[in-house]
Amino acid sequence: MTTDRTSPATGGYVQPELDVRGLTEVLDGEYAEVRDLVRANLVTYASVLDEAEELDIDAYRERVRELVVEMAATGQTGMGFPKRYGGGGDVGASIAAFETLAFGDLSVLVKVGVQFGLFGGAILHLGTERHHDAYLPGLITGELMGCFAMTETGHGSNVQALGTVARYDVDAQEFVITTEGDQARKDYIGNAARHGELAVVFAQLEVGGESRGVHAFVVPIRVDGEAAPGVHIEDDGRKMGLNGVDNGRLRFDGVRVDREALLNRFADVTPEGVYESTIDNPNRRFFTMLGTLVQGRVSVGGAGVGAAKVALAIATKYALRRRQFAAGPQGEEQLLLDYGLHQRRLLPLIARTYALHFAQDVVRTQLHGVFSDLEDDAQARRLLEARAAGTKALATWHATQAIQECREACGGAGYLAVNRFAALKADSDIFTTFEGDNHVLLQLVAKGLLTDYASEFEDLDQLGMVRYVTNLAVETVIEKTSAHKLLERVRDLLPGGDEWDREAGLLDSEYQLAMVRYREEHMLAGVARRLKSGIDRKRDPGAVFSEVQDHVIAVARAHMERLVLEAFVEKMRTLPEGGNKVALGLLCDLYALSTIEADRAWFMEHGRLTVQRSKAITREVNDLCRKIRPLAGGLVDAWGIPDAMLRAPDLVGEA
Amino acid sequence: MTTDRTSPATGGYVQPELDVRGLTEVLDGEYAEVRDLVRANLVTYASVLDEAEELDIDAYRERVRELVVEMAATGQTGMGFPKRYGGGGDVGASIAAFETLAFGDLSVLVKVGVQFGLFGGAILHLGTERHHDAYLPGLITGELMGCFAMTETGHGSNVQALGTVARYDVDAQEFVITTEGDQARKDYIGNAARHGELAVVFAQLEVGGESRGVHAFVVPIRVDGEAAPGVHIEDDGRKMGLNGVDNGRLRFDGVRVDREALLNRFADVTPEGVYESTIDNPNRRFFTMLGTLVQGRVSVGGAGVGAAKVALAIATKYALRRRQFAAGPQGEEQLLLDYGLHQRRLLPLIARTYALHFAQDVVRTQLHGVFSDLEDDAQARRLLEARAAGTKALATWHATQAIQECREACGGAGYLAVNRFAALKADSDIFTTFEGDNHVLLQLVAKGLLTDYASEFEDLDQLGMVRYVTNLAVETVIEKTSAHKLLERVRDLLPGGDEWDREAGLLDSEYQLAMVRYREEHMLAGVARRLKSGIDRKRDPGAVFSEVQDHVIAVARAHMERLVLEAFVEKMRTLPEGGNKVALGLLCDLYALSTIEADRAWFMEHGRLTVQRSKAITREVNDLCRKIRPLAGGLVDAWGIPDAMLRAPDLVGEA
Ligand SMILES: Cc1cc2nc3c(=O)[nH]c(=O)nc-3n(C[C@H](O)[C@H](O)[C@H](O)COP(=O)(O)OP(=O)(O)OC[C@H]3O[C@@H](n4cnc5c(N)ncnc54)[C@H](O)[C@@H]3O)c2cc1C
Ligand SMILES: Cc1cc2nc3c(=O)[nH]c(=O)nc-3n(C[C@H](O)[C@H](O)[C@H](O)COP(=O)(O)OP(=O)(O)OC[C@H]3O[C@@H](n4cnc5c(N)ncnc54)[C@H](O)[C@@H]3O)c2cc1C
Repeated sequence: MTTDRTSPATGGYVQPELDVRGLTEVLDGEYAEVRDLVRANLVTYASVLDEAEELDIDAYRERVRELVVEMAATGQTGMGFPKRYGGGGDVGASIAAFETLAFGDLSVLVKVGVQFGLFGGAILHLGTERHHDAYLPGLITGELMGCFAMTETGHGSNVQALGTVARYDVDAQEFVITTEGDQARKDYIGNAARHGELAVVFAQLEVGGESRGVHAFVVPIRVDGEAAPGVHIEDDGRKMGLNGVDNGRLRFDGVRVDREALLNRFADVTPEGVYESTIDNPNRRFFTMLGTLVQGRVSVGGAGVGAAKVALAIATKYALRRRQFAAGPQGEEQLLLDYGLHQRRLLPLIARTYALHFAQDVVRTQLHGVFSDLEDDAQARRLLEARAAGTKALATWHATQAIQECREACGGAGYLAVNRFAALKADSDIFTTFEGDNHVLLQLVAKGLLTDYASEFEDLDQLGMVRYVTNLAVETVIEKTSAHKLLERVRDLLPGGDEWDREAGLLDSEYQLAMVRYREEHMLAGVARRLKSGIDRKRDPGAVFSEVQDHVIAVARAHMERLVLEAFVEKMRTLPEGGNKVALGLLCDLYALSTIEADRAWFMEHGRLTVQRSKAITREVNDLCRKIRPLAGGLVDAWGIPDAMLRAPDLVGEA
Repeated sequence: MTTDRTSPATGGYVQPELDVRGLTEVLDGEYAEVRDLVRANLVTYASVLDEAEELDIDAYRERVRELVVEMAATGQTGMGFPKRYGGGGDVGASIAAFETLAFGDLSVLVKVGVQFGLFGGAILHLGTERHHDAYLPGLITGELMGCFAMTETGHGSNVQALGTVARYDVDAQEFVITTEGDQARKDYIGNAARHGELAVVFAQLEVGGESRGVHAFVVPIRVDGEAAPGVHIEDDGRKMGLNGVDNGRLRFDGVRVDREALLNRFADVTPEGVYESTIDNPNRRFFTMLGTLVQGRVSVGGAGVGAAKVALAIATKYALRRRQFAAGPQGEEQLLLDYGLHQRRLLPLIARTYALHFAQDVVRTQLHGVFSDLEDDAQARRLLEARAAGTKALATWHATQAIQECREACGGAGYLAVNRFAALKADSDIFTTFEGDNHVLLQLVAKGLLTDYASEFEDLDQLGMVRYVTNLAVETVIEKTSAHKLLERVRDLLPGGDEWDREAGLLDSEYQLAMVRYREEHMLAGVARRLKSGIDRKRDPGAVFSEVQDHVIAVARAHMERLVLEAFVEKMRTLPEGGNKVALGLLCDLYALSTIEADRAWFMEHGRLTVQRSKAITREVNDLCRKIRPLAGGLVDAWGIPDAMLRAPDLVGEA
């Protein structure tokens, strides 16, 4: 990471000594204690990995419920709630716990997420003291199980358009909740099929015949194990994975709840039927409410990183034991990890996992800041929301990709359920979809960039956004991102002046950063320009947006990859000199260069990479893989995954 | 596909009329009849898709066995066996049947593959009349179930190194089969855990103390449902998918079989213990034996295409019903397939599926030719083997990728087991590994290319190959593929002369072909040169090979993509003018250009793509997506997947 490090093909290079325990400390950071608590719990309840296979679906669901309650008793799951209700009063710790829990059975993880993150989070952040007093103590112990009922069959990503209605009946001083039409039934709702007694139901609030947009209500859905009157519950049945979680469908047939059931932190209805809100603009109100739920996204992103670690630890350990084919006629068969191909398959994924780990640290810290009122302004919240959305998308796609590659790298053994891939793959598959579909999230990220975090942002639907961009933001964006300005800014940072992109060392982190920054800003300007020119030519804004949409996604990705690299580089700067720093430096270079390599066509197309340099990057990536090869075992050990979670004795060897 | 077709952004372009039934006829080709038989069987037994979920693993295995026997009775599964034993005498038809069967439950498919393809195929191709008479009639009806026991715990890809030993006992005139050490137990063997009575066991033959390499023996493993004496059977247990197939492990503890149990088509042992073979060279013998089993790879490749079709049909139909988000503030919500991003996600995959379908047609035809003795020379066999290996790799990776993308494109609904993705994803996951791990197969393809199909090929292990390449082949390869020669060859074909790569139309198929041909040959020369220079510098050949390995894989991919494109273009040439030809032309262009686009960095790095042209290709791909959008429904309907196989009424709508 230092600017003077060169890449000697031979000689000069000294392999760093890895201090695995020290590296674990770096990774665990300030939350080592809670992480170790979770590790211990995982080991205590390790049998659930077998039970997941052996039990029928009903028994498995019960077992998972049991475990969630038992883990709750250790304090692990309640870290994010106020102490006065029995919580730990530390949001960051609650995320760190969740990240670590992802080493184990993912049904347990997701049920914890539903109960404490979604249901508990909605009560905490959308409700007020009356709701906190009534529900938090019970839900923190897991005694009171609840649902977060937002998604409907007809509307997942587009939450604002959901169809459930809550009409205020002024005479009874009650809300009447009704599922209007088949598409408005709540669907995929965790805890609904079996264990939930309450549900936080998102519905279109109607007061005095006027629609006020989506609001949340606490609705009892089950009494003594039976569906509450007017509530119809269906089981979503078997799923690809996560079968320890009881997802279900809910219909409301004129279900009446008290006026105080409205989670009224941001808006309320007086007994007389007057609607009141501290936020006038309905769109802003909606996004503010939603914004308080950002914790769920941060959690799932972290879980994605954790799941990827498990897969990579198994595949790496296997590749350090498994031999197949001899390099020479008499020779012993060769370890898989000594094949250049196998290094290429696994090591960049390990580097990316480290990068995402540190990027996740940043989001978690921001979340902690915002939700501990350390840094709670609108700007900080907006930055957090965008970053959480983007990190969630990158981390969960990474999990899907890494798990797949690792299964294949373990050959036939990877396919047996006794090893971990079957469950890992099936359970984590939905991470890319729930808590916000990744493609939809990246569009959100891009919109934020395009409108330059202007405060008008939340008012803008797709069409509005396009208009807005053409009228206002484009000039700024284009101005701000003009190639000229960009180059000026990097020129001073790097050796080589105007020729920085040809002269700087590939292993200079300033060069790597300049590259990904340049890409992001250039792409951003391009998208803005395209939108503007479409509108200027009076074309249909929907069609214009549709055509530009893959650029929109590309810019969001580029933005996130820049943030991830910055997080890694920043982390490096804080480390003391030594073997671990050198090793992480290799990983950071590998992440940076393999990221640039993957998009080298773009860099060439935009004049920032010569053909020679592009090829040199590929060579450097290979060279880094060779250097990291001897460190691979230690690098995956440092994640501190309990042996019992790796399972798979025939893959990783007996502990 | 015609060279004069231009790409008018507006005007001039007339959307082709699709004749879906006619397109199905094109796709079904000469095997329409057997494909329709399989379609009818799939509908008759459609309930297995539910049973796969509902039954416990034992009952599911029994049900799958039942179905296999019932389907066998319709003649569908025995197409590849000689008529005199009750088969259909048509190898091509047997593959076509298998491809179609992949629309349904994949446990049924794989059990059919194990029984008739692997077990039956080994008896047919490695055995002689005595084995045919004894086993074929029973196995064709499914009454006699058998295993193909090649893989061991310690050796999957490297079959030549397996550890089971078969010693000839000249006094008893018997072979004694022994599992030597834990790593030599047979593993993952289909039909072993439950239904197999016989196994074709691959073992190192020892005669008179001399090792003769791997040979195959018919070994009874189960008598009246109990393990035969000396045979130890273990169940592999639950797997990620394919749980209707009973995979297991086999150990042989000095199991004695008659001398005639040796499948003796290529080698035999006389009663007196003299080893005889028509093929002197042991390596050549081994590869000849293995080569007769190529049908399994052709089958799995075809199944990959079939599985991808199911996923794409569901996701496309969903995208034509599902609306999410409005394009404008008052507007109706927009269909998913009208989003540019969604088009980009699905339509290139549809194009690639068509391309692989036609490429699979070519392999199937070659297989039919070779195994019907229409064209049975060593050269034809070798071409077939390489092509089968490469097509299997591309088609099964495509299946994994397409199924994943389609699940994500269906959002939360895609995750419910009642829809098809859960089973489709879990069951097909192993396609990339069994019948030859894809990475290992691509190395095989590349070795074939490097040694220019020289007959010495089969003798060469990795080290030998490296030496060989350096001594012999490199000059030829480099000579043959010199940039100069290459350019000469394309210059005459394309307008623009020396400037062909700048002047030709992007939609000119000659241009597209020239690009992928150039890439292949250039990469090939590069790999050869690298190997040679490593050896010239007296470096360790294993290390040299390891370093070049990702180029080796790249050249194999490039080779296969060229063959796939050629297959598509050739097919186009045979079609009558009309809407279907125009539509397939769009798909062919989309396949070609999105393939080039994906590797445009390479083309720029090697001077075959200017920056402007590279960007133009991306624009053209988007444009093609927009043109294909209105045809998408018809294009997936033409695959003729029975509605019952799509299941998923909430995704695709009621039939
Ligand atoms: C196991 C599981 C647990 C869940 N738990 C809960 C829960 O407890 N509570 C709850 O409320 N919900 C829950 N959900 C629902 C989940 O949050 C939704 O499935 C998710 O938000 C996606 O919505 P959708 O399924 O309607 O997909 P859609 O929104 O219909 O998206 C389908 C596809 O269309 C694409 N798409 C959508 N809009 C656009 C656009 N504008 N441009 C381009 N492409 C677009 C998406 O990328 C996606 O690929 C759960 C789901 C599952 C499967
Ligand atoms: C469900 C199922 C059914 C099966 N059915 C049968 C059956 O009926 N009969 C039977 O005989 N077998 C069967 N198999 C076994 C199957 O064919 C093997 O699993 C497969 O051949 C791979 O072998 P392996 O598992 O030993 O992986 P390995 O060969 O150990 O490969 C592991 C990994 O190492 C990589 N690798 C290997 N060599 C190299 C190299 N030289 N360079 C770079 N990378 C390398 C591979 O790419 C792979 O990713 C089945 C397997 C499964 C899971």
